[in-house]
Amino acid sequence: MSKRISIYRKEHFNAAHRLNSDLLSAEENARVFGKCNYPNYHGHNYELIIKVTGEVNPVTGYMIDMKVLSDMVKAEVIEKFDHKNLNLDTNEFKNLNPTAENIAMVIYDKLRSKLESTYDLKVILYETERNYVEYPA
Amino acid sequence: MSKRISIYRKEHFNAAHRLNSDLLSAEENARVFGKCNYPNYHGHNYELIIKVTGEVNPVTGYMIDMKVLSDMVKAEVIEKFDHKNLNLDTNEFKNLNPTAENIAMVIYDKLRSKLESTYDLKVILYETERNYVEYPA
Amino acid sequence: MSKRISIYRKEHFNAAHRLNSDLLSAEENARVFGKCNYPNYHGHNYELIIKVTGEVNPVTGYMIDMKVLSDMVKAEVIEKFDHKNLNLDTNEFKNLNPTAENIAMVIYDKLRSKLESTYDLKVILYETERNYVEYPA
Amino acid sequence: MSKRISIYRKEHFNAAHRLNSDLLSAEENARVFGKCNYPNYHGHNYELIIKVTGEVNPVTGYMIDMKVLSDMVKAEVIEKFDHKNLNLDTNEFKNLNPTAENIAMVIYDKLRSKLESTYDLKVILYETERNYVEYPA
Amino acid sequence: MSKRISIYRKEHFNAAHRLNSDLLSAEENARVFGKCNYPNYHGHNYELIIKVTGEVNPVTGYMIDMKVLSDMVKAEVIEKFDHKNLNLDTNEFKNLNPTAENIAMVIYDKLRSKLESTYDLKVILYETERNYVEYPA
Amino acid sequence: MSKRISIYRKEHFNAAHRLNSDLLSAEENARVFGKCNYPNYHGHNYELIIKVTGEVNPVTGYMIDMKVLSDMVKAEVIEKFDHKNLNLDTNEFKNLNPTAENIAMVIYDKLRSKLESTYDLKVILYETERNYVEYPA
Repeated sequence: MSKRISIYRKEHFNAAHRLNSDLLSAEENARVFGKCNYPNYHGHNYELIIKVTGEVNPVTGYMIDMKVLSDMVKAEVIEKFDHKNLNLDTNEFKNLNPTAENIAMVIYDKLRSKLESTYDLKVILYETERNYVEYPA
Repeated sequence: MSKRISIYRKEHFNAAHRLNSDLLSAEENARVFGKCNYPNYHGHNYELIIKVTGEVNPVTGYMIDMKVLSDMVKAEVIEKFDHKNLNLDTNEFKNLNPTAENIAMVIYDKLRSKLESTYDLKVILYETERNYVEYPA
Repeated sequence: MSKRISIYRKEHFNAAHRLNSDLLSAEENARVFGKCNYPNYHGHNYELIIKVTGEVNPVTGYMIDMKVLSDMVKAEVIEKFDHKNLNLDTNEFKNLNPTAENIAMVIYDKLRSKLESTYDLKVILYETERNYVEYPA
Repeated sequence: MSKRISIYRKEHFNAAHRLNSDLLSAEENARVFGKCNYPNYHGHNYELIIKVTGEVNPVTGYMIDMKVLSDMVKAEVIEKFDHKNLNLDTNEFKNLNPTAENIAMVIYDKLRSKLESTYDLKVILYETERNYVEYPA
Repeated sequence: MSKRISIYRKEHFNAAHRLNSDLLSAEENARVFGKCNYPNYHGHNYELIIKVTGEVNPVTGYMIDMKVLSDMVKAEVIEKFDHKNLNLDTNEFKNLNPTAENIAMVIYDKLRSKLESTYDLKVILYETERNYVEYPA
Repeated sequence: MSKRISIYRKEHFNAAHRLNSDLLSAEENARVFGKCNYPNYHGHNYELIIKVTGEVNPVTGYMIDMKVLSDMVKAEVIEKFDHKNLNLDTNEFKNLNPTAENIAMVIYDKLRSKLESTYDLKVILYETERNYVEYPA
């Protein structure tokens, strides 16, 4: 029987953002997003948990090298988003509203393309201690 | 491909309870529930995490409005249970033993009836930092 | 030079209570204590941190044996308050309103009488993650 | 003997900021503040702990009403800073670099002027889980 | 419909270990495991979460008695690994590299053999706050 | 009036240790230190908080550059103790029992000699989530 196991690695970044959709009017944006629509941005300490699932290598006892995974997350995600304004400083959110849902999906796509296909991947993103998302469900 | 995502919202309430089953004798209740069966109640800071799964709205970038969800949880659960004695002050636990399992299932039923059927729902309830339950499994 | 150091030991207990002062009318109690005055009690997971200050024993490298301290806290505090209704089940709060302030001061008095006088003592009591007290200041 | 006790109340707000001093050149600002000087702002989930010290009221068993304190903090601090850009949206940091040190001192001054002088006050501000400040020392 | 629910119980143990595989050369071990391969061991505060899934007993309102589960984990795992050197003091890791993955799988096998087969079981093991594993996936 | 403020910086390291005093017999060591005296070492995830107190620089708004402080702690403490066996791999604990008290005092001396004398310094060391020390008191 194959023995699949999941590992989780937690990283973090600090960023500014503003919720605003190009597909909504100013009134609709204000109504839907409330304080998150304030024009001059606010920000968060984002806590990012990467979950990777696969089989344990019987020689090393590792499923994946946590350091290799951490370096990949740092190169693909943290370097690009940390201490940035997601709306202004990143190509990913130029035309995409930086909700927690969309940020998690963007991070998933970045890592999915770098991770070997034998691994399953999930992204868990804490916007605050009380609000977080997981993709895919 | 539909892109389903989960969001989590954390709320809390403080309540008193006592574990005691109408279907057991006093001796059995004392044996099964130990200190949790003490007659004059004890209490907990319950941490409640609501997990909702669905598709992201491409216009807003929201899967569900966290504020709407939070308000629903507050109206349906927190207002009813916060600073209450679950055994004495609530209809739900008049004849139902307020174990963490039963509290989670009661909260699930309350929210399931309010939440559109396109959403999946899970309830995670921390009775203490070291004991928690998730329903459905 | 004497080298004084502080050690902290964290314990916890779960209890029910109700805030109500014998020195206030029913109306005043309801106004001052709000939901905390509900008649049938509510409860908390109390996190208790004991801080002891003294000199390090050069033979052992211990300032105080953490296990001895933990056993003292368990015997003097946890055994008496855990899974109890503070208002109904304890002598200490029969005529004393079990606010966080008063609980901390009662615990201080219990431990102060057991701890050698060369040690300084502080009690930190978390009623919730967001409300806590420290005695003496 | 007077019995002084401290209570702590934890609140939070999310804000954007950028570290930049009017008294330094662009090169100096970049060197001193590094990523925190990026022009388009980043942000944080600020955790704010207010510590108040005073005597316990023997009638109520309260040193201060935690709800009154929480409402004061919300009115004086949270309403003004939450979901704001500290540099652009607040008068306090128009000409003052919003370092954690300066934010804590501004919050202290706001609350000190509202709190009766018999109370001692400290402000503890977490910028991240690993970086925080306390004022006054 | 059967109503399956999951409960989680958190325990902890402190242990020393060193990552080194009998199937690799000294050079390969140093390269693969880096600082974790240092010859004289290092250690961790392991946080262990046991997840058990089953149906709620309608008489008690318990799915499983948390105390019975906790005692089983203490007897089968904590007593054997707490304050031990996993490589030197345990039979389980004499010839098995004590990676988080392997420790979780060993703990799973120990508990699986004790737990009735109607229950599902998962083991979640935190090696640090930022690195953890879940078995089975 | 000078305005002194404290900043806190949290770092961590993982290490193995064994409590054993050269000044005690084997029987005394076993009695005093219990499981912590087991011959083959156990280990911890040490969380280290450095508290520095001083005046805010009115030009920068910094009391101390958190990055400079973090780099100092990494160079003086983390590099030396992380993933090490404190008893075997360090000069500091060759003849000094590595209790939390002694580790905190050793770290204090290392940093005190590097930090300008205008700053006050405290070291807070968590051996576990429930046991920690602060030096000086």
